[in-house]
Amino acid sequence: MRASGIITLLTDFGGRDAYVGIMKGVALGICPAARLVDLTHEVPPQAVRLGALLLRSAVGYFPDGTVHLAVVDPGVGSARNPIAVVGERAALVGPDNGLLAPAAAALGTYAVRRLTCERLFRQPVSSTFHGRDVFAPVAAHLAAGIAAEELGPELPALEPLDIPAARVEPGAVHGEIIYVDHFGNLVSNIDAAVVRAFRPQTVSVSIGETMMSPLAASYAAVPSGRPLALVGSWGLVEVAVRDGNAAAALRAGLATPVTVTGELTRA
Amino acid sequence: MRASGIITLLTDFGGRDAYVGIMKGVALGICPAARLVDLTHEVPPQAVRLGALLLRSAVGYFPDGTVHLAVVDPGVGSARNPIAVVGERAALVGPDNGLLAPAAAALGTYAVRRLTCERLFRQPVSSTFHGRDVFAPVAAHLAAGIAAEELGPELPALEPLDIPAARVEPGAVHGEIIYVDHFGNLVSNIDAAVVRAFRPQTVSVSIGETMMSPLAASYAAVPSGRPLALVGSWGLVEVAVRDGNAAAALRAGLATPVTVTGELTRA
Amino acid sequence: MRASGIITLLTDFGGRDAYVGIMKGVALGICPAARLVDLTHEVPPQAVRLGALLLRSAVGYFPDGTVHLAVVDPGVGSARNPIAVVGERAALVGPDNGLLAPAAAALGTYAVRRLTCERLFRQPVSSTFHGRDVFAPVAAHLAAGIAAEELGPELPALEPLDIPAARVEPGAVHGEIIYVDHFGNLVSNIDAAVVRAFRPQTVSVSIGETMMSPLAASYAAVPSGRPLALVGSWGLVEVAVRDGNAAAALRAGLATPVTVTGELTRA
Repeated sequence: MRASGIITLLTDFGGRDAYVGIMKGVALGICPAARLVDLTHEVPPQAVRLGALLLRSAVGYFPDGTVHLAVVDPGVGSARNPIAVVGERAALVGPDNGLLAPAAAALGTYAVRRLTCERLFRQPVSSTFHGRDVFAPVAAHLAAGIAAEELGPELPALEPLDIPAARVEPGAVHGEIIYVDHFGNLVSNIDAAVVRAFRPQTVSVSIGETMMSPLAASYAAVPSGRPLALVGSWGLVEVAVRDGNAAAALRAGLATPVTVTGELTRA
Repeated sequence: MRASGIITLLTDFGGRDAYVGIMKGVALGICPAARLVDLTHEVPPQAVRLGALLLRSAVGYFPDGTVHLAVVDPGVGSARNPIAVVGERAALVGPDNGLLAPAAAALGTYAVRRLTCERLFRQPVSSTFHGRDVFAPVAAHLAAGIAAEELGPELPALEPLDIPAARVEPGAVHGEIIYVDHFGNLVSNIDAAVVRAFRPQTVSVSIGETMMSPLAASYAAVPSGRPLALVGSWGLVEVAVRDGNAAAALRAGLATPVTVTGELTRA
Repeated sequence: MRASGIITLLTDFGGRDAYVGIMKGVALGICPAARLVDLTHEVPPQAVRLGALLLRSAVGYFPDGTVHLAVVDPGVGSARNPIAVVGERAALVGPDNGLLAPAAAALGTYAVRRLTCERLFRQPVSSTFHGRDVFAPVAAHLAAGIAAEELGPELPALEPLDIPAARVEPGAVHGEIIYVDHFGNLVSNIDAAVVRAFRPQTVSVSIGETMMSPLAASYAAVPSGRPLALVGSWGLVEVAVRDGNAAAALRAGLATPVTVTGELTRA
């Protein structure tokens, strides 16, 4: 990877404390030219899976050479490894607890490095705030152009993320809601590619007792207040209510089942 | 306009998701030298009028050459036009739904361009996230110095914003609360200029059963816990409670009527 | 101080309004090369002491030459002085109401300047928003390299902050909770240095009816859901619950008493 100087930050630290600002101060001390972009700091406390999904949703939109720093780290101070994932086009830095796994898969080929090079860390390294003492310094060194080999030894693989997969049958895909956004839009784990196997006019999406058919092209395809299903900006099947909040209106949330049915294009 | 490289962002996206970060990533890919400044992302969902007022409140404080990117867009994917408003000193980019109208009026002279130049967009353009695919790219091209003519054809006018106007009578102005800030300060739609027509010692401001007279010079002009009226930082008549929350204390909010009375200076 | 161009911002303005963005616009107009880093804007309204503690917690992590702009200012428009505190390595700008005092103490030697040089301010200076009209402009001038002498006359001392001190007895330290972070971790006013006078295995920490002994090395030292005490990232004794929220679980908050006991190392 050739560093662009951009570092993104994703944490579960919230906005009330100065922890995120402190990480930025440490990073700027190492890489004064770094440009810092917040992804979000409102991942629910210690919600590794949600953080992982948000990180994956964002990495594809940044210029080549971006370093993504992510800290949702319930195991800080325990045996979990601090790591960097370095690909051709981007790098990820954070704890090896599944948080980086979906984003890494989106990078294509990459190498995983265990962060063992103590001289890159802020000293003394605390046992409670590796974001400040380990991850921000390493992200800043990567943004400043350090070679990946200097970070530490290569690991054979990342810890995987326990993420529910959609179940595909002929003519039906059974999934669930994996993310609810600020607008109450319900994002499922059903990929647009799977749905494209169906003839468009035959596709129908069910959540609870609500059935929507066919997929809509945009929120504006239905009247105000009505539910719709579409392929949303995540590239996943999403359920929304026009000008409304689908999570509230349909009483749905994380883990609510969703089913997509349709006639296969080439059956 | 001569671009300064500064892009501000105002949306109703909230801070929980990565949508704002994604827009910044797209912008930095097009204009690597862009400096990104958040105005706010906590406009209530789809509250075009509040977003428009916040945008207008901020544009006058940025250096010449700033591009203001604003997305409160309940009609994304429908027939509303994506536009840019380009003036001598600043540009605005967003949907043509009234969101940009008050800020445009503050720019002085300007031209409105319909965004039709597809090669400037992120491809493929989704039907649900024009902030990422249309508005952020165009804002970044403007920050990088593209000529306004390249964006698309000129439109004769902006869609207006439906915003309540104060009603002026001899000796009285009848308005309403149009914004409640984080401190509970109540911002009215009564302009300081209108009030300056009255003799200062005769001015009195009524909201519900509370009457305050004359206008205060600062919050510190009354004892702690007491209400006061003043010309606030928006240049509008504002009702506050010293060291307190006026919205809660006076049970007032959006659309609560406010009346200012006084003796005209030259009657 | 030799300016680095970095300006941090800490306020009680929240994220809903555009006030923080407006301050940044004003700062960029004066110092176009400024790099702006948010510490937090969610200090509870007018909570000077919490703001002061957050500012102190952060200043040590920024590069030399950083200007810290802090505005928690219930007395705006009253007689309190606007000031800058300029040390060898950093500067602080804000109201002289105690907000800057703990961070100033962390700077080592410094001079206090009363901000009287009107030509540095944004004109006209409002009586309600000195963050925009006084503090952001002066911070930007400092970030651009102005000499401290130009800001105004030296003051003999800062207004002190009324902050509770821990009471030290032989074998016991009585303190209280002074900060509760986003995770519900309870930060006390008992310094790690005081605790180091005890033999490690004899240290025990009491809060309400919960006693924890000895200090833990990290959150991972106890099973999930159990309370622990440790020296946290603030360098202070902190009470946490592993994978949980200590404030909720222990029904503790600001001003809850905490006692540390132990056998003195050299008694």
